Amino acid sequence: MTVYRQAEKQSNLGAHFSAVRALSEALVQPLSDADATAQSMDDASPAKWHLAHITWFFETFVLRDHVPGYEPYDPAYSYLFNSYYEAEGERHARPHRGLLTRPSLAQIFAYRRHVDGAMAAALTDLPAEARELVTLGLHHEQQHQELLLTDILHLFAQNPLEPAIWDAPSALPAPVPGPVQWIEGREGIIEIGHDGDDFAFDCEGPRHSTILTPHALAHRTVTNGEWMEFMAAGGYSDPRHWLSDGWAWVQREGIVAPLYWRKDKQGWTRFGHDGRRPVNPAAPVAHVSLYEADAYASWAGARLPTEPEWESAAQDLDSHGGNQLDSARCPRPRACEQASGLAQMFGDVWEWTGSAYRPYPGFRAAEGAVGEYNGKFMSGQFVLKGGSCATPRGHMRASYRNFFYPHQRWQFTGVRLAKDL
Amino acid sequence: MTVYRQAEKQSNLGAHFSAVRALSEALVQPLSDADATAQSMDDASPAKWHLAHITWFFETFVLRDHVPGYEPYDPAYSYLFNSYYEAEGERHARPHRGLLTRPSLAQIFAYRRHVDGAMAAALTDLPAEARELVTLGLHHEQQHQELLLTDILHLFAQNPLEPAIWDAPSALPAPVPGPVQWIEGREGIIEIGHDGDDFAFDCEGPRHSTILTPHALAHRTVTNGEWMEFMAAGGYSDPRHWLSDGWAWVQREGIVAPLYWRKDKQGWTRFGHDGRRPVNPAAPVAHVSLYEADAYASWAGARLPTEPEWESAAQDLDSHGGNQLDSARCPRPRACEQASGLAQMFGDVWEWTGSAYRPYPGFRAAEGAVGEYNGKFMSGQFVLKGGSCATPRGHMRASYRNFFYPHQRWQFTGVRLAKDL
Amino acid sequence: MTVYRQAEKQSNLGAHFSAVRALSEALVQPLSDADATAQSMDDASPAKWHLAHITWFFETFVLRDHVPGYEPYDPAYSYLFNSYYEAEGERHARPHRGLLTRPSLAQIFAYRRHVDGAMAAALTDLPAEARELVTLGLHHEQQHQELLLTDILHLFAQNPLEPAIWDAPSALPAPVPGPVQWIEGREGIIEIGHDGDDFAFDCEGPRHSTILTPHALAHRTVTNGEWMEFMAAGGYSDPRHWLSDGWAWVQREGIVAPLYWRKDKQGWTRFGHDGRRPVNPAAPVAHVSLYEADAYASWAGARLPTEPEWESAAQDLDSHGGNQLDSARCPRPRACEQASGLAQMFGDVWEWTGSAYRPYPGFRAAEGAVGEYNGKFMSGQFVLKGGSCATPRGHMRASYRNFFYPHQRWQFTGVRLAKDL
Amino acid sequence: MTVYRQAEKQSNLGAHFSAVRALSEALVQPLSDADATAQSMDDASPAKWHLAHITWFFETFVLRDHVPGYEPYDPAYSYLFNSYYEAEGERHARPHRGLLTRPSLAQIFAYRRHVDGAMAAALTDLPAEARELVTLGLHHEQQHQELLLTDILHLFAQNPLEPAIWDAPSALPAPVPGPVQWIEGREGIIEIGHDGDDFAFDCEGPRHSTILTPHALAHRTVTNGEWMEFMAAGGYSDPRHWLSDGWAWVQREGIVAPLYWRKDKQGWTRFGHDGRRPVNPAAPVAHVSLYEADAYASWAGARLPTEPEWESAAQDLDSHGGNQLDSARCPRPRACEQASGLAQMFGDVWEWTGSAYRPYPGFRAAEGAVGEYNGKFMSGQFVLKGGSCATPRGHMRASYRNFFYPHQRWQFTGVRLAKDL
Repeated sequence: MTVYRQAEKQSNLGAHFSAVRALSEALVQPLSDADATAQSMDDASPAKWHLAHITWFFETFVLRDHVPGYEPYDPAYSYLFNSYYEAEGERHARPHRGLLTRPSLAQIFAYRRHVDGAMAAALTDLPAEARELVTLGLHHEQQHQELLLTDILHLFAQNPLEPAIWDAPSALPAPVPGPVQWIEGREGIIEIGHDGDDFAFDCEGPRHSTILTPHALAHRTVTNGEWMEFMAAGGYSDPRHWLSDGWAWVQREGIVAPLYWRKDKQGWTRFGHDGRRPVNPAAPVAHVSLYEADAYASWAGARLPTEPEWESAAQDLDSHGGNQLDSARCPRPRACEQASGLAQMFGDVWEWTGSAYRPYPGFRAAEGAVGEYNGKFMSGQFVLKGGSCATPRGHMRASYRNFFYPHQRWQFTGVRLAKDL
Repeated sequence: MTVYRQAEKQSNLGAHFSAVRALSEALVQPLSDADATAQSMDDASPAKWHLAHITWFFETFVLRDHVPGYEPYDPAYSYLFNSYYEAEGERHARPHRGLLTRPSLAQIFAYRRHVDGAMAAALTDLPAEARELVTLGLHHEQQHQELLLTDILHLFAQNPLEPAIWDAPSALPAPVPGPVQWIEGREGIIEIGHDGDDFAFDCEGPRHSTILTPHALAHRTVTNGEWMEFMAAGGYSDPRHWLSDGWAWVQREGIVAPLYWRKDKQGWTRFGHDGRRPVNPAAPVAHVSLYEADAYASWAGARLPTEPEWESAAQDLDSHGGNQLDSARCPRPRACEQASGLAQMFGDVWEWTGSAYRPYPGFRAAEGAVGEYNGKFMSGQFVLKGGSCATPRGHMRASYRNFFYPHQRWQFTGVRLAKDL
Repeated sequence: MTVYRQAEKQSNLGAHFSAVRALSEALVQPLSDADATAQSMDDASPAKWHLAHITWFFETFVLRDHVPGYEPYDPAYSYLFNSYYEAEGERHARPHRGLLTRPSLAQIFAYRRHVDGAMAAALTDLPAEARELVTLGLHHEQQHQELLLTDILHLFAQNPLEPAIWDAPSALPAPVPGPVQWIEGREGIIEIGHDGDDFAFDCEGPRHSTILTPHALAHRTVTNGEWMEFMAAGGYSDPRHWLSDGWAWVQREGIVAPLYWRKDKQGWTRFGHDGRRPVNPAAPVAHVSLYEADAYASWAGARLPTEPEWESAAQDLDSHGGNQLDSARCPRPRACEQASGLAQMFGDVWEWTGSAYRPYPGFRAAEGAVGEYNGKFMSGQFVLKGGSCATPRGHMRASYRNFFYPHQRWQFTGVRLAKDL
Repeated sequence: MTVYRQAEKQSNLGAHFSAVRALSEALVQPLSDADATAQSMDDASPAKWHLAHITWFFETFVLRDHVPGYEPYDPAYSYLFNSYYEAEGERHARPHRGLLTRPSLAQIFAYRRHVDGAMAAALTDLPAEARELVTLGLHHEQQHQELLLTDILHLFAQNPLEPAIWDAPSALPAPVPGPVQWIEGREGIIEIGHDGDDFAFDCEGPRHSTILTPHALAHRTVTNGEWMEFMAAGGYSDPRHWLSDGWAWVQREGIVAPLYWRKDKQGWTRFGHDGRRPVNPAAPVAHVSLYEADAYASWAGARLPTEPEWESAAQDLDSHGGNQLDSARCPRPRACEQASGLAQMFGDVWEWTGSAYRPYPGFRAAEGAVGEYNGKFMSGQFVLKGGSCATPRGHMRASYRNFFYPHQRWQFTGVRLAKDL
């Protein structure tokens, strides 16, 4: 099995299972049944659906496949809560997930109770292969925790009342960071990709050599203040900075600012889990598409990092640090660190790279349904690295490959500049 | 003021107000917050939205405009719950009503309490003009009661679980009605349209003369059994029966049966407020579009009645009779009456006429926002008459003009045949 | 056969045939093969297609069906040049007519030569039924002559070069007509619809009685100058004047003026068969939709005439008069006649009525394929009366019922006001 | 200037110019004015537009910018015939190119005469920078020659008459090639990308090192016969083989075979420049998308080559060999060569690689309008290598990077398999 290399030790696995499952439920505490049911766009899913889907994953690939005698909680749930696993048969059309007012949020909690109980009973005796699937399922659930946060943010942003999901303590204004410092990267043959016994998704390997040309990375991500300079300079209306598809997108969609930004009388504001607030010039810009990131870099006389450049630099850093999700409280950007070296590599915002999401040399998808996990998405998308303020701490590593289409921006996506030397 | 002729007496008005308002709330008792929030298509609205909108109507046109010192319950509600009154300013885009997870259903009930209290306090002292608006608002609310029932049916039909909203006592199978009898209609100059002091919508008048040519109406509506004959005869695949727009619709949408019908192993079933059940051949066909109704009539060698033909025949009948909505229980077709004369003219299903919804001679819309009530919809739609099993008893009369686009069929819409003599 | 009442006399028929066929070919003289091939929107057809389709009509319904031994010129043409006759089998999809670069215009002329020859040989011996079809075919061809002119105008309007199809002698500026005079119409029972032995389309009958209420018609149509007043008064941006569907159309399409109008530095210009020229305030407004016509009437405190009102008034007038198409030269509006009575009833512009296009009492479509000619279009469209400057003279009569969807405006469509008395 | 490295010698340049320009005109000899005007989809352009656009390129970037006193032939042409150069101002919307019936094909030929004359007069005295632009323009024209051939093929395929553009001599049936031989590729550090003095597009450089892992390439491309095995094995209906976007595309578009294939009574046929003919099992499959190519490779237990793998292998071969376009005659696949080594690398069909079209390390677009030539298209597209039967001989080289979106297949696109060793 190639999906990942090693299952966690038994004791850790139980604790890990409990902790991850608990965080998912904590995240939805502020939500009503209706909040958890609505779907604001095809790309998003209802919170209730996330909660059920990640439970269905354990029920199907662990309990059904590896626990003799397990009976599915409700045979209809497989149809309702399969996401995209073709091997698992027909499923409810994604754009209609928001019409599933039944089962209710309370019923989904009951479903979770049931599966959690069966998992607790089964964990001690699971074969190694199944334990690997449990670990996979937990990382899968962490991915959906981030999606749940960004999807619910998108939903609330559609409501003219603009409700805040969490109150945020009024943060002290962060000091505006100083100018970008350029940190020279490695040159020549390097290795990237996952190797070793820790968990990783299949697409992160095999580890392999690649060649870096002389380059430098910005020591920090682009700030909202810098982004407003780009806007003031006409960045959104000058086709010279834009990829052709990006320029068509800007014009078709009437894009003039990052997602959730709006110009009010007092100036630019943004919507977040804490409601609508003034844009903080010191914070990293978030909710920009690859098209916008690339145009900004072009305007700034720079470019986006490649995935190998980014990963090479990140291999030396602590992937558990930075502004990531520690609890169910709404994640929000903290002040930029004023480090002289590379900062914000992990946490804050996902960083668009200029690398297309394609397989590494020798990549092979896992057998069976879980093999649909990554490989089939390898066209048309770009790699993002580093995690965001909504990524559960512990989920991230340098080899992690997130991927989105170049127009998507409802995730916490931002920009780090790079340049050739 | 031309909207209607006379306000109800004061004593009646208070009782009427309470009864209508109570029915609306009874209808949503089976619904969860999520059920009441979701919107299954652009044509439909969430139940919660209906409850709020009909309350906003009273708050705006009665309390705000006629009760000095009344303060709006929540200034944002006008934006959220205005339906289409351009004169009342900007409003939330209709297709996004299903994303309003806040305010919650409970909050909307609180809003209703507030407005009901203010209305109760104000009713005794309202000027005549305002009392007329109260009556208008009650008829408006009754219209939304029917829409609420058909919208929630449409929503539940999208759920693969196909939940029943109400349990239905298993009705005795109705006897299949005998062949159609043709009832000769009046000929020559007749009068149609509303006149007199009772309430009517503006579009029902002025009363005026028109000329009927020799014709007859079927004594009952078309049954499901007859419709299945049409289907078996290839009715949905023979363009000769269809209006050109209807044929394009059938092909584009892949229409092969009435809405909510599905062929299971045991035969045709339909979805209703009582869940999915076998199609009852004795019951009137429902959920067919004007296109289907017209094609059926063409196949049967007949035609649809015109509005004057229908109204002329109905003027002699009791509009309070028939299978209409008496309570919050799910309405369902009863067995066809075996009358020798005209049956089912009121209740059961709305009957498509062959008449376009256009103004009567001398029609003028009311002044102000409530003048947007009817006149502006007079293009592209057809008139339906007689009410349905989901129409609140007491709301109907012979001059009533309902209207829908020819492809719409999520209402309880059926067919009565007519022919030239 | 109910399509029309009487075939023309034999001698007349031959001359009529030659004259109509010649006009079609004269109209396309200015067109290149490419001009005659392109299709600028789904509603329009290429000029070459028109020429072939009207020839296919004779070939199919006369030669094939009534001339023993006739062999089709090219068996593929039935597929290519059938418009919408379902009974005649599969056909080329309408939106792709503009991709038929072969057969060439020259080949279509050859096709016409062939069919014209066969028709000339056959005309003397045709049975009465076939002679009726010839007459029908000639009126059908006249309809397509007008469509050909409006479709080619639409095509040329898409070309940034805005080529003129015909040079127009610079007309003397017409005097701006004086204010509207209101001409009182008949009241009470009148008769409309076709009767007698002359040709008429099936939908024009049966002749029947209807009732008119007191009303008056404007003695002339609305001028461009008056329309500019409507525009200056904000007519296109005030929803109160508009039908609901019309207002949605205005906003969705960004409509601010009649079709082909553009504001240049010197003021409003319009595109016509003679190229782009300043809008003539004295000329009748043309290229407005039913939505616009209705909004204008509402703004002007008037309404559109009903079809019976219009037809009743027109029955006394000479349908061969007015500004109609006499030759292949580009038709263009002439100065409005300063008559004290009703003017411009025939010719100039088609006049939108407020009447939906629905069947008259007792209407039955003809049997067979030609029965698809009119009846199946009787939903969603409005009646227009009187013909236009592009209608071949001799084609028009008071009972003539043209019909278009309320948003369409690439025909020469204008407005006459009416009001209740 | 980084677009390419060296201008051709003066004597060569004149001859090259004449030869390339002549071939363009020869290719359109079979086309009528209408054939050359129609546009069958947004991705394609009319032949007439190609002829004008490639002429506009010389007129604008050479004559206007480098020949003092040159007056544009027609000032409107810049608007009409600019393709996508934002720096050159507004231009006619691409989807409406097919409505430009004027200027005629004859007028475009006259335009070409005029520009060719001015170019001939200017060539001897052009500065080096302008001579580089001439060379660029000639390679640009060669690209459009291939597009012209594929666009006109697409147009003719929409015509139910399926006209042949060229008669093809009936070729002897090619022997079906034997099984694939796997040719081992280089391993370790290699160099790819253009270097040296010959012409190349900007995106082909800089030359740089990359690392190849052990792999082999199929010695020939996939044949139609092999493709029919894939189809017979249910390849188009099994989601496991497909990229997720590809599977959505297959289902949405109803794809069941390569473009232009149709199953007739006698079996599968394909449409080509020589009309509709039986599919030749020995010929390379053409007109497949990246999605199809990837699914085929997956089904066959292989993968697509990466660009570096392909280019490394091709660097040793003669890029002037193979089945390429030598004249204006319709190109058609020849029998596969039975070489024991790599065959068909150049010519026959473009070979999809698994590499996204992204910039090489150190890539910088050229300054000015010609800098829009390549870089701005670097998102969402895949690289194709090797040229096709429709690529003008002499235009191709190993470093050449063609690019299309993964769903596009109206080019002569095929498949070569690769595998890891």
